[in-house]
Amino acid sequence: MESATDRYTDLIDVMRRRRSVRRFEPGQTVDRAVLLKIAEAGRWAPTGANSQCFDIVVVDDPKVRDAVLDVFIDQSNRLIDHVKGFPAVKKTYLANTVAIVIVLADERWKQAFPQATTAAWEREYHENNERILIASIGAAVQNIQLAVTAVGLTSAWLSGGGEDTTNEDLRRVLGFPEGLRAVGTIPIGVPEKDLASRYRRPLDQVVHWNGYDPEKFRPQAMLDYYVQEVRQFAMYRGEEDAGHWEDADKRLGPWKEAFTGPRPNPGGKIG
Amino acid sequence: MESATDRYTDLIDVMRRRRSVRRFEPGQTVDRAVLLKIAEAGRWAPTGANSQCFDIVVVDDPKVRDAVLDVFIDQSNRLIDHVKGFPAVKKTYLANTVAIVIVLADERWKQAFPQATTAAWEREYHENNERILIASIGAAVQNIQLAVTAVGLTSAWLSGGGEDTTNEDLRRVLGFPEGLRAVGTIPIGVPEKDLASRYRRPLDQVVHWNGYDPEKFRPQAMLDYYVQEVRQFAMYRGEEDAGHWEDADKRLGPWKEAFTGPRPNPGGKIG
Repeated sequence: MESATDRYTDLIDVMRRRRSVRRFEPGQTVDRAVLLKIAEAGRWAPTGANSQCFDIVVVDDPKVRDAVLDVFIDQSNRLIDHVKGFPAVKKTYLANTVAIVIVLADERWKQAFPQATTAAWEREYHENNERILIASIGAAVQNIQLAVTAVGLTSAWLSGGGEDTTNEDLRRVLGFPEGLRAVGTIPIGVPEKDLASRYRRPLDQVVHWNGYDPEKFRPQAMLDYYVQEVRQFAMYRGEEDAGHWEDADKRLGPWKEAFTGPRPNPGGKIG
Repeated sequence: MESATDRYTDLIDVMRRRRSVRRFEPGQTVDRAVLLKIAEAGRWAPTGANSQCFDIVVVDDPKVRDAVLDVFIDQSNRLIDHVKGFPAVKKTYLANTVAIVIVLADERWKQAFPQATTAAWEREYHENNERILIASIGAAVQNIQLAVTAVGLTSAWLSGGGEDTTNEDLRRVLGFPEGLRAVGTIPIGVPEKDLASRYRRPLDQVVHWNGYDPEKFRPQAMLDYYVQEVRQFAMYRGEEDAGHWEDADKRLGPWKEAFTGPRPNPGGKIG
């Protein structure tokens, strides 16, 4: 029996190595036994009211994979045409996956979450039902991604399947019923190389003890700067501490300390 | 270096042992070093556009914990008064936590996800921004719960903090700004006893190969039956296979095969 310290060390190691990779070794395959291990991890995710409000579609047939690839190439093209400056990645790497796992949220199961008895209380519960559903899917996707890492493979997490047009295209390819939505798409492959972790905020910036510390609030101007100047690097560069980027001063500009230090909002003024 | 087989075995063991427990040993405490290990796991969760769209509030001060407890007692009472037959649990067990971790979704970060350039495409991306945000929070909560399990503690996942009234009450207690929402609340404690896993659908029912299998569709009447007759047991009983419940025939009724077998919808008719 492993000690608690070893168990935690092994777990955090898998969590740190789980990261979105978009380059896979071509020409690889994997046994269905491995794919079932990955799906099994998804099955153990917690869900609201234990509704198990999702299904898992595993695509390992190259013809179906190519059809899914076409859907995401169209999705990428829509991002280029209709979205403001989003750093979209060419989805052709999907051709090198060993499998694509698609987690379908079954929206009908929201009825298992709290339902108000009167119209006056509907708002209190109705919106939160959607949050319970989608957070449950997030937990399932994370379990799947951790299992992918543990078996020595690698993955990404595409959220575009949740967009209406993309979801309808995927529905046509995979044949899932109305009321189900492809919230999480997880391409799986053999990593081309072992890549380092992505940028993370320092732990001390993320954690608040016994109440919210306003000095850790990320000001709106910092969000704007992230979207304009930092996002395209923070999404794809392999380096936990953005302060270690060679061009950190240029990329992070006046917000360098805010992105890499414990207090992005010295003085704690909000709004 | 562990082999991939060992890594997976250790991981799935933690995933299976992570389950919602609502009985903790009273009078226990835990070092902040352990709580930081748990928060560190949350920090490594994936988020849309690497926005790291959440903050983690850790409550280990008994006075603040009691104030959070009061908020959730009010939340439970609202469920009893305003929600149709939801099997609410008395929240007094929160007094026996060693800490309560609250994951705040920072809704402002949706601006880092795809934004349509024209009104015609707004619907395509707008609703999905919310899904990306909340699924990211679900991944963080799951990482936190897995770390709790790995260090030998146990937890539950309360989603009620996302309800408007409860969220406002928590905001008053914890002082977090507008635009942040307490989507995940994770009470942490020392388990009173080692409890078995909860009901899960068989793996073969959850997994679809290369397309959706309509024989695995859970019919609407099965959902209705779950909410009316099964939910209060499936949420709290420690048994993976509901078919092993002593009173399985009575509780699962005409849907016993559907809940426990591979094909809840023989014949595959949908709608």
